Amino acid sequence: MIEIAVAKGDGIGPEIMEAVLSIFKAAEAPLQYHFVEMGKWVFDKGIGNGMTPEAKATIEKLGILFKGPMETPKGKGVKSINVTARKTWNTYANKRTFQTLHGVNTVFSKAGIPIDLTVVRENIEDTYGGIEHQLTEDVAISRRIITRPGSEQVIRYAFEMAKQKKARRVTCVHKANIMKITDGMFLNTFRKIAAEYPELNSDDIIVDDLCMKMVTRPESFDVLVLTNLQGDIVSDLCAGLVGGLGFAPSANIGDNICIFEAVHGTAPDIAGKNIANPTALLLSGIAMLHHLGLTETAAKIENALLYTLEQGIHTGDFGDKSTASLNTTEFASKIIENF
Amino acid sequence: MIEIAVAKGDGIGPEIMEAVLSIFKAAEAPLQYHFVEMGKWVFDKGIGNGMTPEAKATIEKLGILFKGPMETPKGKGVKSINVTARKTWNTYANKRTFQTLHGVNTVFSKAGIPIDLTVVRENIEDTYGGIEHQLTEDVAISRRIITRPGSEQVIRYAFEMAKQKKARRVTCVHKANIMKITDGMFLNTFRKIAAEYPELNSDDIIVDDLCMKMVTRPESFDVLVLTNLQGDIVSDLCAGLVGGLGFAPSANIGDNICIFEAVHGTAPDIAGKNIANPTALLLSGIAMLHHLGLTETAAKIENALLYTLEQGIHTGDFGDKSTASLNTTEFASKIIENF
Ligand SMILES: CC(C)[C@H](C(=O)O)[C@@H](O)C(=O)O
Ligand SMILES: CC(C)[C@H](C(=O)O)[C@@H](O)C(=O)O
Repeated sequence: MIEIAVAKGDGIGPEIMEAVLSIFKAAEAPLQYHFVEMGKWVFDKGIGNGMTPEAKATIEKLGILFKGPMETPKGKGVKSINVTARKTWNTYANKRTFQTLHGVNTVFSKAGIPIDLTVVRENIEDTYGGIEHQLTEDVAISRRIITRPGSEQVIRYAFEMAKQKKARRVTCVHKANIMKITDGMFLNTFRKIAAEYPELNSDDIIVDDLCMKMVTRPESFDVLVLTNLQGDIVSDLCAGLVGGLGFAPSANIGDNICIFEAVHGTAPDIAGKNIANPTALLLSGIAMLHHLGLTETAAKIENALLYTLEQGIHTGDFGDKSTASLNTTEFASKIIENF
Repeated sequence: MIEIAVAKGDGIGPEIMEAVLSIFKAAEAPLQYHFVEMGKWVFDKGIGNGMTPEAKATIEKLGILFKGPMETPKGKGVKSINVTARKTWNTYANKRTFQTLHGVNTVFSKAGIPIDLTVVRENIEDTYGGIEHQLTEDVAISRRIITRPGSEQVIRYAFEMAKQKKARRVTCVHKANIMKITDGMFLNTFRKIAAEYPELNSDDIIVDDLCMKMVTRPESFDVLVLTNLQGDIVSDLCAGLVGGLGFAPSANIGDNICIFEAVHGTAPDIAGKNIANPTALLLSGIAMLHHLGLTETAAKIENALLYTLEQGIHTGDFGDKSTASLNTTEFASKIIENF
């Protein structure tokens, strides 16, 4: 049994997590769960960073956190729990994969344009450092910091991952024509590391141009590597291409700790109604199984999910509106039936 | 006769400008042109900022510059001529409109999703100030500066423009959940100004979420207002929705000087071949005619352009590949025939 930490999260988090764990159980995934207290509900109990010391210790001991969506607490100076987690454990690479899912209709799927993209986003630096101040009543300044070691580790991760999955190409996305020194450092680091992987094609593109081409010819890209904020924007754009954040898994990779999470919101309006779509969390869970070397279990679940979607089975948020939508539990049961 | 400055630009600039001016002439636009020396070709003659003192004086006297694409000269410390022009003349708002053009096929037009978007981008501040330095061998820092007066003028422009064109809604796009002080200032300024326009709907959205929704439900947006870099990225994404930069006009608005330009590249590979697509420059020209109050001439040309595109007439870069493509001059003639 592999022990992992599980945080159910806020809003729809607990119910989609329950659905995913029921699928894991049916697939006999050899996992043992340590449920940890983390999320806005923990923050609301007066624990400043939204995580109990026990939760932190468990996650650090086990090295793997599987988490539902978490709400950012309101208030001045309060940080997003997700962002704090990434920073606390130095999960320097955020990997999100975007693939056409049959049954999830988008303008691209209807046009027969296949999407198969992997976005590797630097996960800690950039303006995410939150180093900002108000110089005068009228002037605000934010510092955007890019480091060579920070760039190196995420770019190297992208190349290693690309090599492993036999990708066609790794593309560095940047705005080095304007941010010549910061993005220049990222781009130069990319070029240096690319030279160590002669077996992989590599190139670079300016972020605005990439976004234009992403909606006209998304099939021409493969693995992208980006700085934090540009990566944030481009990941969500890519999620849109496959139907939205409800269909996009996310993995935060560090040397000691990896976090697999659904990056969509907590949807407080439908929380507790058992109607949320667990697909993004399930896809993140499948990525986690792969990461843990549980390839067979991962494939079994993935195939069942893809087959279920292909059959036109759906929750209320997507799919053919003329066919009945299933609730969260029913949707999970259908996936299990399709093992 | 209204006098304006015209800079043909680099690469395909001169030939698409010639095509557009031939259309203006046929439409009897009451314009008198002062051709000015500006572009990479001027930089190459040893004039540091890519603009002769005479060009600068003429543009400042006339207040209107109509310009083709310009290449950014290579070299350390060399600035983009386009960006320098925006800064020199304090053209604080960049307005780009994106509309479905019948005959220009995209996945969205095929899906019957109409695009009708106006992006108003702050055009000078943000990391475009170029205030960057390398702190150590390994650490690079860029300063992102947002000011209240800078935010105010672009946001006010967006609301005034929206009011005039009877827009449904003005949306502020930002990343104030991470850049709480800088984008917070932009967002607060937006909210303050929005309160002065109770007749217009207004709301705000986080930039990553916007990019996701822009590819899933672009029809749900109307006028967007953004800071510089996010505006740069989102404009190009929107251009992609209507077929690319070849179909997107751009206006840089200042209190004293306005620049109407094609924002696509100079396409050096096809320069001089008379095969470039003049549509973006023509659309920018039409926006200029409107700005100058030449509404009838603008409408006459616009209708002819739309009708020509609708007929399936196209240059080599777009349209039905099974029908013959026209060269630049022929395409312009067809538009004139359709007056
Ligand atoms: C919630 C927000 C702070 C976060 C980010 O900007 O990284 C989110 O957009 C994401 O991509 O996980
Ligand atoms: C060429 C480049 C510097 C410019 C920008 O980033 O503003 C371009 O992308 C644009 O949008 O006009």
